[in-house]
Amino acid sequence: MAQKPSIPKGTRDFSPAEVAKRNYIIQTIKKHFETFGFMPIETPSFENSETLMGKYGDEGDRLIFKILNSGDFISKVDDVTYSSKNSASLTPKISEKALRYDLTVPFARYVVMHQNEIDFPFKRYQIQPVWRADRPQKGRFREFYQCDADVVGANGLLQEVEFVQLYDAVFTDLGLKGTTIKINNRKILSGIAEVIGAKHLLVDFTVALDKLDKIGEEKVKTEMLEKGISEAAITKAQPLFEMTGTAAEQLEKLKSILAESEAGMHGVAELEEIITTVDVLGLQSAKLQLDVTLARGLNYYTGAIFEVAAPEGVQMGSIGGGGRYDDLTGIFGLKDVSGVGISFGLDRIYLVLEELNLFPDSLDIALDVLCLNFGKQEGLASLKLVSALRKAGLRADLYPTDAKMNKQFKYADKRGVPYTILLGEQELTNGNFVVKNMKTGNQQAYSLDDAASFAESIKSAF
Amino acid sequence: MAQKPSIPKGTRDFSPAEVAKRNYIIQTIKKHFETFGFMPIETPSFENSETLMGKYGDEGDRLIFKILNSGDFISKVDDVTYSSKNSASLTPKISEKALRYDLTVPFARYVVMHQNEIDFPFKRYQIQPVWRADRPQKGRFREFYQCDADVVGANGLLQEVEFVQLYDAVFTDLGLKGTTIKINNRKILSGIAEVIGAKHLLVDFTVALDKLDKIGEEKVKTEMLEKGISEAAITKAQPLFEMTGTAAEQLEKLKSILAESEAGMHGVAELEEIITTVDVLGLQSAKLQLDVTLARGLNYYTGAIFEVAAPEGVQMGSIGGGGRYDDLTGIFGLKDVSGVGISFGLDRIYLVLEELNLFPDSLDIALDVLCLNFGKQEGLASLKLVSALRKAGLRADLYPTDAKMNKQFKYADKRGVPYTILLGEQELTNGNFVVKNMKTGNQQAYSLDDAASFAESIKSAF
Repeated sequence: MAQKPSIPKGTRDFSPAEVAKRNYIIQTIKKHFETFGFMPIETPSFENSETLMGKYGDEGDRLIFKILNSGDFISKVDDVTYSSKNSASLTPKISEKALRYDLTVPFARYVVMHQNEIDFPFKRYQIQPVWRADRPQKGRFREFYQCDADVVGANGLLQEVEFVQLYDAVFTDLGLKGTTIKINNRKILSGIAEVIGAKHLLVDFTVALDKLDKIGEEKVKTEMLEKGISEAAITKAQPLFEMTGTAAEQLEKLKSILAESEAGMHGVAELEEIITTVDVLGLQSAKLQLDVTLARGLNYYTGAIFEVAAPEGVQMGSIGGGGRYDDLTGIFGLKDVSGVGISFGLDRIYLVLEELNLFPDSLDIALDVLCLNFGKQEGLASLKLVSALRKAGLRADLYPTDAKMNKQFKYADKRGVPYTILLGEQELTNGNFVVKNMKTGNQQAYSLDDAASFAESIKSAF
Repeated sequence: MAQKPSIPKGTRDFSPAEVAKRNYIIQTIKKHFETFGFMPIETPSFENSETLMGKYGDEGDRLIFKILNSGDFISKVDDVTYSSKNSASLTPKISEKALRYDLTVPFARYVVMHQNEIDFPFKRYQIQPVWRADRPQKGRFREFYQCDADVVGANGLLQEVEFVQLYDAVFTDLGLKGTTIKINNRKILSGIAEVIGAKHLLVDFTVALDKLDKIGEEKVKTEMLEKGISEAAITKAQPLFEMTGTAAEQLEKLKSILAESEAGMHGVAELEEIITTVDVLGLQSAKLQLDVTLARGLNYYTGAIFEVAAPEGVQMGSIGGGGRYDDLTGIFGLKDVSGVGISFGLDRIYLVLEELNLFPDSLDIALDVLCLNFGKQEGLASLKLVSALRKAGLRADLYPTDAKMNKQFKYADKRGVPYTILLGEQELTNGNFVVKNMKTGNQQAYSLDDAASFAESIKSAF
């Protein structure tokens, strides 16, 4: 009768060791979100379908997990729809709710619904899972966490500066030195398309340019030609392929290329202010890099665009990204609310920290002290001792049965406990307990009345 | 075009203030789970339907949220099933996954799948949302968190003792004094049914007895009669309706009632050991109460049964519950694994703390310092200052634009910030900044070079 259990593809169980590592990253991100003045909100795992559908393009609509209506859902489907036996027309009749696909649309919905309770500018963060019916592959899951921070209702460039600092603060704290925060501005991309006479082909132009890193200059140009961008336009865009030097030098080059484009010059001015301010304030371990080929989510962002690359030598896609979008809440009827935000890629950050061996060793320790179990009488004294240690804040446990010492020590080993406590007949008579350091093998006796000072000595050793 | 947004019934948005309070409860529970040696795991939000279906009874099956298969799901339904137009037979053809209904079944599935990586006894905790298509009503939601701690692979009564201590530790730490931890044992209920000759009617007998608190003795007896329990049997059970006095007195009474039942006497012995041990160890603020009418989830538990009641005077159902179940993992093919666990009711604990005004005031403060914005030049100095304060661990923010002072102060007020910083032209010239205590109105100047000592003074004030 018993089934061999499994979990749906693209989903994961997390063991205690994995949860500890994930929580370490999440807590670090959270801490800095909060020092930067962001406040947490949470939204439901599922939304009404009409809140989500149509917000992520056709592909997105397909990847949204739909929830089947409860009860006798089929009886509510009209005969005409039913007889069509067509999934697309049947879906809205038998499903009214869907799992969250990202945190941005639910956030926009939240802002509109709660606009009268919110004090703008509103800096919110949200760390929750999202679900996508994507084809699972290495590093891509059907359930994964997003860690987003956004500001709505603030128009200056201060936010962009702060987000660069925030990335720097988090990655520095995680020990991940040498990340590159790439920055661009949608207005610069628009300006370039305008200047080279390909304004109507902005998306094609940008999609091709975005691939420069991966496929190289020649192939990018071939793709542009294929998309109908003229030879002359591509020649005009030549300086983009030769964007080297410091940010200041690149900005000068852009000013000469974009002199004729108002939007473009506006973008350059914005970038210049952000870069200059960040420069004055200084970064701890990241570097800020102007990258005119950066275009992620072009149809979405209207100002700054960010993307973070792992330190050189680590093969990993972006570990963070974001930007400014001028009309976050328009889809839900609240106009003129500008937003800007960034996201941290939890799963990829995890893989990078693992690869560089940057997780603190202390995360492997889930239990500070294991008290061995010598039997009923000693067990009660042990339980008292363990209770006292727990009250003192130690993670302490009593082995549940008086199994053979061998077995108990083996368990202690496997759990990686740094200290075991021996409280046998002899110790009970003497009114003390013996602490064994599992690494050095050293043993030390403490009085049973003095559990607190033992606890203090352990805590100060961490 | 814009839609008026809403969220599905039975779900909730959580504002920053609500998230802070919920996290306060969760963090407190988590801290004690960990000091008691429990380790966190996480399982996917959705499971394969066959993992969940049939585990919670027919009613449970109905309340499980099913996820619609992706893609052209209808084309995979055979014509016979489709033409039946029957929801029950169609569901398994168009849905293979379902949202988690509780944390216990996924945990059992986890233990079986990962049995070779787990060191038994395995103490795990899990704090994650679950979903039920229940009719929403006050305090009952379609998405809610469960906070569970369980031990598998340990048979002593030590676990039961520890769980009583764990409840006491958590509720004491939350300031919730005077909770009652009710305890019973399934074997006692079986023993009673046996002794009064109603063994085959155990469930009916217990379901009726469980209502004693709510409907009173007479109605309970009427229900028992209706269910086919004889007048004679009910008369024999009379002492149950008169169970008063201390736990010790009640245990004596039970011993005389149950003398003829081996199972019953076994249950009494277990209860006695747990109650005696807890008594020796002492509780901080909770009291442990023997309650022979306690029967929650009878078909599930095989030994101890727990339930926690809020302090007297608070109208609220149980705020926690649990027990021992001897065959947790049998449904997935792993026999003879005993489990015992408890759960904390997050939503109800929240309501109780709110009613008794027990949330710490500090939870209302999401930002320690707001630096007012006097314009571009001052803004840069302010940004430097704010950066330094953040590095020192303060939650600090700079108002994003140089709006009118009035507006900025109003914003500070609304966010409940305890301190604002004024760094205007005058201060910039003097190389200092002025800190205003928003409660007292007091102002104090600090040197711009001395942000760290200001940060320290603030942190020590909390």
